[in-house]
Amino acid sequence: MRNIKLTVAYEGTAYNGFQRQMNGIGIQQILEVRLAKMFGHELKMYGAGRTDTGVHAYGQVVNFKTSGTIPTERIAIGSRCLLPHDIVITEAQDVDEKFHAQYAATSKIYVYKIYPHVMPNLFLRNYAWHIWRKLDIPAMQEAAQIIIGTHDFSAFCAAGGTTISPVRTIMAADCQFDGDIFELSFWGTGFLYHMVRNLTGTLVAVGLGARSVQDFKAILDSHERKRAGITAPAHGLYLKEVKY
Amino acid sequence: MRNIKLTVAYEGTAYNGFQRQMNGIGIQQILEVRLAKMFGHELKMYGAGRTDTGVHAYGQVVNFKTSGTIPTERIAIGSRCLLPHDIVITEAQDVDEKFHAQYAATSKIYVYKIYPHVMPNLFLRNYAWHIWRKLDIPAMQEAAQIIIGTHDFSAFCAAGGTTISPVRTIMAADCQFDGDIFELSFWGTGFLYHMVRNLTGTLVAVGLGARSVQDFKAILDSHERKRAGITAPAHGLYLKEVKY
Repeated sequence: MRNIKLTVAYEGTAYNGFQRQMNGIGIQQILEVRLAKMFGHELKMYGAGRTDTGVHAYGQVVNFKTSGTIPTERIAIGSRCLLPHDIVITEAQDVDEKFHAQYAATSKIYVYKIYPHVMPNLFLRNYAWHIWRKLDIPAMQEAAQIIIGTHDFSAFCAAGGTTISPVRTIMAADCQFDGDIFELSFWGTGFLYHMVRNLTGTLVAVGLGARSVQDFKAILDSHERKRAGITAPAHGLYLKEVKY
Repeated sequence: MRNIKLTVAYEGTAYNGFQRQMNGIGIQQILEVRLAKMFGHELKMYGAGRTDTGVHAYGQVVNFKTSGTIPTERIAIGSRCLLPHDIVITEAQDVDEKFHAQYAATSKIYVYKIYPHVMPNLFLRNYAWHIWRKLDIPAMQEAAQIIIGTHDFSAFCAAGGTTISPVRTIMAADCQFDGDIFELSFWGTGFLYHMVRNLTGTLVAVGLGARSVQDFKAILDSHERKRAGITAPAHGLYLKEVKY
């Protein structure tokens, strides 16, 4: 059996998240059903990370086993007419039979996009969080540096997250403008459920002056979810890259 | 009767153009039906320009007469919960009873967005024309200057355009990058049916080397539609501004 690794970009707006769902359609399901036509047998896809409804990806990674004979270099181009326009396979490669997209991942990069402007931009309504008040960017940058390193991130984990250990290592956390868009990026060994969106919501609270940089540190150290800020909306979040 | 001028931004992806349609829903119809709830009587909206299916607007202008009493400064904010998320009223003002959005317009600015990159960007699939081959930008800039002034634009008018005179005046035509996006902008007294999309299709043919700058001038001078390039797709086109 061949083991194939795919890099997949998608817009999450129309789907109920990445994972196969009981109610609604997940992106995983679209990939399994549509690519089965290419390979001639049922497929089981394993994704590097679950993304929620409305969350996007530049570089989700999935793997699947197949006895099909289609050449690997034809998969990305051949999938274009099988997949809907909001899901694109950007790369396909043969990998070792032991490779598993989720368990082999060593780190991930998430990006959160904010559109800080008095008026909303309707063309960004599904792609960035609109914040109409002015953000204190230096304060947000200072606060973001606090999470770098290995910490117990319980304060930023959604209630109902089922992870055993809440300790994660963040290698980099940056905030910077890319044109009109203010981008927060987080590179870490792993992320708890809703962790990026909770970090973003609390960093925005710092940017709006509702919390200080010292408050942000105290929230992290408290390990108490109820002390942190709101969960930023899903539509500003992008799974940018999975590293192996 | 009050005469009210609205500036409207919309994403055209989900609609069958601006104008009220027999088949499918036009943006004009959405505005008339939804705002009738605010004003308490049936409304008839007049738009500055018809935009085709998939064409967007930053600054479409419409006017309508009303006996309703809602203050003008409340219209934009009050319409937010009545309109779908892809149609936004950005400004409302009282105007003279003789003002008509179409007939009073003295000029319009259209922008056409191109994404020149080897790979398509799925997040731009409804917002910019993907051109995967390299464009000769200086040649396109040179060709664009040829249309400035008053010309018979028959060569760039769709068959079936019903305009009496094909003469229009272009005050400015620019091509420049805005980040990853290559933007063509056209400021003119008026535009024939599909004129901006036909100009864009032919300018792109120049950019790809399929036509020379001299060919472009010969096409304009020929007044023959069949000599020009393809009609650029609707989803890259934006009605940016209507001047009075």
